[in-house]
Amino acid sequence: MTNTLRIIPLGGLGEVGKNMTLFEYGRNILIVDAGIMFPEHDMWGIDVVIPDYAYLRERADQVRGIVVTHGHEDHIGGLPYLLVDTPIYGTRLACGLIEAKLAEHKGLGRATPKRIAAGEGFRVGPFEVEFLAINHSIPDGVGLAIGTEIGKVIHTGDFKFDYTPVRGGGPNFTRLGQLGAQGVLALLSDSTGAERAGYTPSEAVIEPAFDQIFREAPGRIIIATFASLLSRVQQVVNAAHRHGRVVALAGYSMLKTTEIARNLGHLEIPPGVLVDLRDARRMADDRVAIVTTGSQGQPEAALARMAEGTHRQIDIKPGDTIVLSSTPIPGNEEEVARVINKLFARGADVLYPPLADVHVSGHASQEEQKLMLSLVRPCFFVPVHGELRHLHAHARLARQLGIPDDHIFILENGSVLEFTAHTARLAEPITSGNVFVDGSGVGDIGPAVMGEREILARDGFVIAIVPVSLATGEVTGRPELVSRGFVYRRESGDLLERAAEKVWNALQGGSSRKRPAIIERTQETLGRFFYDETRRKPMVVAIVTQV
Amino acid sequence: MTNTLRIIPLGGLGEVGKNMTLFEYGRNILIVDAGIMFPEHDMWGIDVVIPDYAYLRERADQVRGIVVTHGHEDHIGGLPYLLVDTPIYGTRLACGLIEAKLAEHKGLGRATPKRIAAGEGFRVGPFEVEFLAINHSIPDGVGLAIGTEIGKVIHTGDFKFDYTPVRGGGPNFTRLGQLGAQGVLALLSDSTGAERAGYTPSEAVIEPAFDQIFREAPGRIIIATFASLLSRVQQVVNAAHRHGRVVALAGYSMLKTTEIARNLGHLEIPPGVLVDLRDARRMADDRVAIVTTGSQGQPEAALARMAEGTHRQIDIKPGDTIVLSSTPIPGNEEEVARVINKLFARGADVLYPPLADVHVSGHASQEEQKLMLSLVRPCFFVPVHGELRHLHAHARLARQLGIPDDHIFILENGSVLEFTAHTARLAEPITSGNVFVDGSGVGDIGPAVMGEREILARDGFVIAIVPVSLATGEVTGRPELVSRGFVYRRESGDLLERAAEKVWNALQGGSSRKRPAIIERTQETLGRFFYDETRRKPMVVAIVTQV
Repeated sequence: MTNTLRIIPLGGLGEVGKNMTLFEYGRNILIVDAGIMFPEHDMWGIDVVIPDYAYLRERADQVRGIVVTHGHEDHIGGLPYLLVDTPIYGTRLACGLIEAKLAEHKGLGRATPKRIAAGEGFRVGPFEVEFLAINHSIPDGVGLAIGTEIGKVIHTGDFKFDYTPVRGGGPNFTRLGQLGAQGVLALLSDSTGAERAGYTPSEAVIEPAFDQIFREAPGRIIIATFASLLSRVQQVVNAAHRHGRVVALAGYSMLKTTEIARNLGHLEIPPGVLVDLRDARRMADDRVAIVTTGSQGQPEAALARMAEGTHRQIDIKPGDTIVLSSTPIPGNEEEVARVINKLFARGADVLYPPLADVHVSGHASQEEQKLMLSLVRPCFFVPVHGELRHLHAHARLARQLGIPDDHIFILENGSVLEFTAHTARLAEPITSGNVFVDGSGVGDIGPAVMGEREILARDGFVIAIVPVSLATGEVTGRPELVSRGFVYRRESGDLLERAAEKVWNALQGGSSRKRPAIIERTQETLGRFFYDETRRKPMVVAIVTQV
Repeated sequence: MTNTLRIIPLGGLGEVGKNMTLFEYGRNILIVDAGIMFPEHDMWGIDVVIPDYAYLRERADQVRGIVVTHGHEDHIGGLPYLLVDTPIYGTRLACGLIEAKLAEHKGLGRATPKRIAAGEGFRVGPFEVEFLAINHSIPDGVGLAIGTEIGKVIHTGDFKFDYTPVRGGGPNFTRLGQLGAQGVLALLSDSTGAERAGYTPSEAVIEPAFDQIFREAPGRIIIATFASLLSRVQQVVNAAHRHGRVVALAGYSMLKTTEIARNLGHLEIPPGVLVDLRDARRMADDRVAIVTTGSQGQPEAALARMAEGTHRQIDIKPGDTIVLSSTPIPGNEEEVARVINKLFARGADVLYPPLADVHVSGHASQEEQKLMLSLVRPCFFVPVHGELRHLHAHARLARQLGIPDDHIFILENGSVLEFTAHTARLAEPITSGNVFVDGSGVGDIGPAVMGEREILARDGFVIAIVPVSLATGEVTGRPELVSRGFVYRRESGDLLERAAEKVWNALQGGSSRKRPAIIERTQETLGRFFYDETRRKPMVVAIVTQV
């Protein structure tokens, strides 16, 4: 009896298989990526979200290895939580970033990731893995060819095709074509850009835009981008060098990532170009460029602090030219807009897409997705890395290219797609879900606590402390009311007094002296009273104290 | 001595002069628009936001009238809060919508808005007002020419130029040119689309996209759009009529707005096309089209309820084609994406921009903004109706057209731009700001309460009730701790017990028996303990009770 290959997308918030995918062959599991997700607006107080690893923990003895496609947080950030003492494989830059991450989380030092270059193959249990050169918004990203006895599966990872990348090589079309000619059982392909027509422009298109800015800016140039978008940092360095400016870095992750990248040869900085931010402040404004974090409007990042006027080293002033070399990730539009507006309010000139061609996506658009499909010519197609809407858009493209509908599988996280050498079918899904990380707590916050936070966020709370006689069980007086986040206390002291009076009256009539009855009566009375008076629904908690 | 004209943008959240602009001439005030703003993500629990009307209240005797440019909420929604017993002027449709709004808020029945048609002029105190035909995403919108002794100011309102609108006429270019030839002191022009190159397409481009959908959809067609986008509703009706489908309406505001529009002749529905939603359910799916609210992903609107499976009359099923005839308003992207994904999850096909050409903006793009500037040729230019970023982008266009930099004014809300017949200068700004409406409370929620809600939203609260002897003032026992939104209580009961123990120990050492000292000590101890244990910072409130 031959084994089946089971593919299980596991990590993603709305997105399918974005942060983790499992390959199971017999009693062997290969994990592809182990990333974190960033919380949505209504995930109150949550810091990060990770997939539920329960399925993996129960099968820890079957896990043969973790293969990482590239060094972005949403692909490596979950490693400290995964705690699987298993070999990790990645490219040189991904491994450098993983080591820095594991060093920050002590006690995880045992796992030393193994460096594999694009084009190389290696074996993990029964899986033959090959790293395929592609492009993405971090250097040294790869796609994967994963072979087992029943056939080869290609997982693109996050990808685009860039014929003229800033550093490193372009994609290996030859190898993709060769694999396609030899026969590919299934293609799992990045769907992020499936709603975008045409080709994603090359990183090279940014150079002329940067040149124009560097030629015309009267004072400092401050460029915000992702710390991991090292090719963009390289482009700033190149432009600064061409136009006789120095480059200073601002923001913790920018400093950390560029240092790792320089050590690994992924960033080339001519002597004298990089200066400390402190030194840059003593130079003429038109000789200075600053690369900073915060292009997503994150309030704690350097750019937002500059916009707020709370950055310790950089005061934004008229004459500054600020470039957002990025576009907002969906959900961040409001924060990004605020930062832009505040920078304008400080007198700076602000440039950003589409007003200037200073950013390109790291993901394939429709024509590149079609090219990938056409090179690989898979028997089965599985759009991944995207929300359901993107998977459906990607599936539409595949149908246009002649892939039959019953050879296209749109999965959910936890879905199990089971392959033989010639067939694919949906098997029973595994139990999956997301785990919320809040402070040092992993998974202790669930719908109940989040629901409470939602109520509190909307209307605050009122606590009623009801004094009850220890001897008789009778309520001995008006409750003390304490509120926060409900009404402005100085202007509404009278409201709480009247509420206490209402409770007192309501409890007089009550026949029961039992605690639960007193609590229920108090909460009901207050809830109704506050809604009538304010049309708000604060959380009301009654506590009985014995006096 | 001649008077000066003072122009004061007053309403907008980030956007300048979006919801209200004041024109002051001598001791006469003309109000242009009185809209509401919708809260941003971090305005915890706020329902709507209105401008602070204090300046107007103090000068109620000087207010000569309110002129409304069109019937959108962000231009008329503030009228019930403004409470100025003053004449209101608007076009027929705007007046119809205002009357419906005032009828819902009883006690405001006195104000009967006066109907003025595009092209007509009227006098309000010293102001000669003329309604100028433009296009927007609600029919019957107008721009304004406002003349005083010192010259004419043109305020575009929200506008675009549509040569082939679905109903009604196109813009009156002739009149704009004539006004420009006669001399315009200042132009206040809509900047919303100032980052978008080219022309905004005509509403007419949607017709072929609708035709294709109506031709190909195998089952029901459900189209979500703004209730106020009556031309879109008309296009659905037209397409349904052409393709032999009936149209049913879903959503309260859709029903209300279309009824008002039909009565005023702004919506033409052939006999037999419009049916009740109940009747539509009994017809063959491929004979039915449904127009619904909820295109912005609003959780309480009909489309989101269909996506959630909680709509009482419509169950989404495979075969349904759902069209989002809209684009997300900035800030709503996350909610819209969720609704789309959930509709796909129910098996429906979902079409939306840019996958189908089913929406166009209601605002001018750069080429139309240039055309407006070129027709009107104002002496001074004031970009309005946009965030600072949009005003700066619009100002850039004006400079390209040769308007000198010192004749362009980028204002903030509360700025006062003071004109004589030949000059403009910034005068002392007025006190302005935003007022939050929460439930029935108008303006009682400020930064203090919002700050409390933010803390509560993030980490919940812990209340400590510390028992103190009435006789001795000594703490008599461990405090009782109550928490919500902080930790999942069933799993962390032990945490609260240990916290109570900590407080008990801390209070033993304390020399002071004074209430404030006990409270401070308790709060400090708990704050530190919880942060050490959980890395969270719940709101901690200590209450001393006498026993």
